[in-house]
Amino acid sequence: MNQPPERNHVSNTERGYMKSRIWKLAVCIAVPIGILLLPVPKGLTLVAWQLLALYIAAILGLLLRPMPEPAVLLAVIGVSSICFRNSATMLAGYTSSTVWLVFCAFMIGTAIVQTGLGRRFAYVLIGRMGKGTLGLGYVTACTDLVLSPVTPSNTARSGGIIFPIVRSLADSLGSKPGATSRRVGAYLTVLLYQISLTTGYIFITGIAPNFLSAKFGQEILKVDITWLLWFKAAVVPGMICLLVVPLLVYWMYPPELKSFDSRELSKKGLADLGPFSRREKVLSVLFVLAILGWATGGITKIDATAVAIAFVGACLVLGVITWDDLAVTKGAWSTFIWYGGVVGLADGLAKAKFFDWMAKVLSSSFNFNGINGILTLAILVLVSLLVRYLFASMATFVTTMVPVLLTLALVAHAPVYPAFFLIAFAACYGCVLTHYGGAVGPVLFGEGYVDQTTWWKIGAVFTLFSFLIHMTVGLFYWKLIGLW
Amino acid sequence: MNQPPERNHVSNTERGYMKSRIWKLAVCIAVPIGILLLPVPKGLTLVAWQLLALYIAAILGLLLRPMPEPAVLLAVIGVSSICFRNSATMLAGYTSSTVWLVFCAFMIGTAIVQTGLGRRFAYVLIGRMGKGTLGLGYVTACTDLVLSPVTPSNTARSGGIIFPIVRSLADSLGSKPGATSRRVGAYLTVLLYQISLTTGYIFITGIAPNFLSAKFGQEILKVDITWLLWFKAAVVPGMICLLVVPLLVYWMYPPELKSFDSRELSKKGLADLGPFSRREKVLSVLFVLAILGWATGGITKIDATAVAIAFVGACLVLGVITWDDLAVTKGAWSTFIWYGGVVGLADGLAKAKFFDWMAKVLSSSFNFNGINGILTLAILVLVSLLVRYLFASMATFVTTMVPVLLTLALVAHAPVYPAFFLIAFAACYGCVLTHYGGAVGPVLFGEGYVDQTTWWKIGAVFTLFSFLIHMTVGLFYWKLIGLW
Repeated sequence: MNQPPERNHVSNTERGYMKSRIWKLAVCIAVPIGILLLPVPKGLTLVAWQLLALYIAAILGLLLRPMPEPAVLLAVIGVSSICFRNSATMLAGYTSSTVWLVFCAFMIGTAIVQTGLGRRFAYVLIGRMGKGTLGLGYVTACTDLVLSPVTPSNTARSGGIIFPIVRSLADSLGSKPGATSRRVGAYLTVLLYQISLTTGYIFITGIAPNFLSAKFGQEILKVDITWLLWFKAAVVPGMICLLVVPLLVYWMYPPELKSFDSRELSKKGLADLGPFSRREKVLSVLFVLAILGWATGGITKIDATAVAIAFVGACLVLGVITWDDLAVTKGAWSTFIWYGGVVGLADGLAKAKFFDWMAKVLSSSFNFNGINGILTLAILVLVSLLVRYLFASMATFVTTMVPVLLTLALVAHAPVYPAFFLIAFAACYGCVLTHYGGAVGPVLFGEGYVDQTTWWKIGAVFTLFSFLIHMTVGLFYWKLIGLW
Repeated sequence: MNQPPERNHVSNTERGYMKSRIWKLAVCIAVPIGILLLPVPKGLTLVAWQLLALYIAAILGLLLRPMPEPAVLLAVIGVSSICFRNSATMLAGYTSSTVWLVFCAFMIGTAIVQTGLGRRFAYVLIGRMGKGTLGLGYVTACTDLVLSPVTPSNTARSGGIIFPIVRSLADSLGSKPGATSRRVGAYLTVLLYQISLTTGYIFITGIAPNFLSAKFGQEILKVDITWLLWFKAAVVPGMICLLVVPLLVYWMYPPELKSFDSRELSKKGLADLGPFSRREKVLSVLFVLAILGWATGGITKIDATAVAIAFVGACLVLGVITWDDLAVTKGAWSTFIWYGGVVGLADGLAKAKFFDWMAKVLSSSFNFNGINGILTLAILVLVSLLVRYLFASMATFVTTMVPVLLTLALVAHAPVYPAFFLIAFAACYGCVLTHYGGAVGPVLFGEGYVDQTTWWKIGAVFTLFSFLIHMTVGLFYWKLIGLW
């Protein structure tokens, strides 16, 4: 695509890539046009039908990926602003506080990586607690958990901060991909993936697509999901899963090396980082303030987005990070552009009463009468987990399936809060079913410590375990705190 | 700021920089707090007063620059979202079509640079027309003019595309900074600066801060500035200035070398670029379509922003640029963040009726009765040009002074469209008064071809010339086309 001008011959691979790209683009364009040629279904306005065609174009673009997600959304926004002769509607998503929260949290993640605070925290914990391999598993979980409220890019958190440390630890213990992988490296790698997608849903700020789930929950189930409510709902089932997973993987896929001394690695790592800098100290204070700000949002009436923007502003004013650091955080901009586009589309569909119409159609197609709402939910979530094998990204899954799942839950008269949380949490932990389910998967799996069969097997067992915990302890606990 | 953690001693320069930074931050924080401690003036709501304090904090931040512009705005938005317990109001600017138009145009500029289309165009023109030094001056003006509707970063256009070519041409003619600078390099460098800030106001998309001027025009004078109206108003006075400036500089600051053959350079440059690529061809077509789209916006009812977003979308779909190219366009993101912030604040102030209040206060302080509106305008614009020596950026000048100037024009009962255009255009051509007035200035001046006295002298003469043309031909022409 982006080849220098002097290059004239196109290689065969590139030609193949171009061909598949053209084929994918053709599908993304033809299907929505096909939809527009059909008569508008009864009960739906023309605008809603057109928006649906655009939304399907976006979904196809996200699934087939002829180009990166933000490019897909910019193209869809471009088409729609021309067709609707109005760019304002489609841009509404970019003022959404949801989009800004995830954007700012990305920026905060940059600060955690840049200052070295994340690595320092990991090294300190490893030095203090990581005496045996199982202990190290718990240290990994704990580190990931502590960083997760401010790093919605779990690729940055687990892949960027923690995995390099785990990798060098395994290396120093003589465990490399191949013959020695099972000594310790394989255990820690696959475990880190399961951990990352569990901490990912304990906080709404733990993984970016949670915000899209919350948006759809608001549009379809009319639930108001604050930072604190999400945490309250997730903490009990989530913490159980997080506490069990190091042991579960230890049992299913035992490392050969059971105990060792990790103090050396910790000491060396900390020496490399140098003394605790002013920037790290300031960031630690801001970090605590942000958690406090989010946790007390219900009392102070300061919304989570305001806290996040103020966090970023404070980091800039106090010199923790510079604007130049933020301006090159490609992930933050990409997320901003494509989430903003999806949120704009979803808002448009909601305003055009599309979701109401979908609920009506689904309730006349499915007969949920007399069937228990909770049982329906269980089936819905199980189905949503089965189709996960087809999805190469959590955000694509959320964009495609979550609106449908939430609408089905609505028409089945399932209790709304349990319905929302069961579906939203499963959207996150379901990533572990494959090595491509969550963005951090390829990073960890690609290192080559673990074979695919093992990876998928452990993923399936842990997904099933998480599902059962949420359906039992989760539901019971949510009843206890009055969510249904 | 962004020093690696292992570095412990801070150099003296850095300590000095930190000190001046702290001092600047203190002013940015203390002044707004001082304002908030004063009683709210009669006729103004508390919210408007608080917004004014935030706006003044932003202006001080832009003037003193303790950190880059987007960082200043993010900090202001952070503070205001906490104080107002509401992040939505402050984020409203990010859905503004003004902000998106400049953002997308930045992206288009990236495509023009990346594909080499801009350079190719310049080389072709130089080969065809650039026989003598004066001719080359006109070629430079023509190239800059053609690129200007799609490159609101005139730093990218004049500094990034054209200047490197001019520089290598001067080099090849034996004109380097120092003893040989006057051969041809000095003439072309200072001329390019004057050209860049003239093409900058012929199209609203020619330089980014034009959009802020248009926003203030809409808020204060209630004028509706479309892409086409701006062009119609600017084309006659702007083209006169553009046609005169190569001759004016030639006369004031004659190059020693009057004629030479530039075909060699053109041939070599084109050979380096290779054959006219598919990407460049597609981009050329899209370029023409965009200009057509903007020019026919009044008939098709497709707004300029929709055209720009569709342009970017088409570039992505057709493989002219990739998302990765766009994601690293730092200038686009910086502009997006800080313009969005300023527009959000300006919107807030307008909604809180701040500008109405300012008009009332100014009209009771100044007695404009019996004074001719046009005369007042002439004085206003002259004063605005005099204070330009204090401003190191056009956008800062627009943010600080244009709302005041427009309000004064309003209370003086000057005709609104001439008032708007005289002030908005002067905000652009006024940059040439100093070598730091426009962002491209330091790039060109820094090369060392021209001394400061000459630079300022030529700038002053051309500014005065532009002012006179706008006050005479401009006003007459605007009367002719019914703008007053």
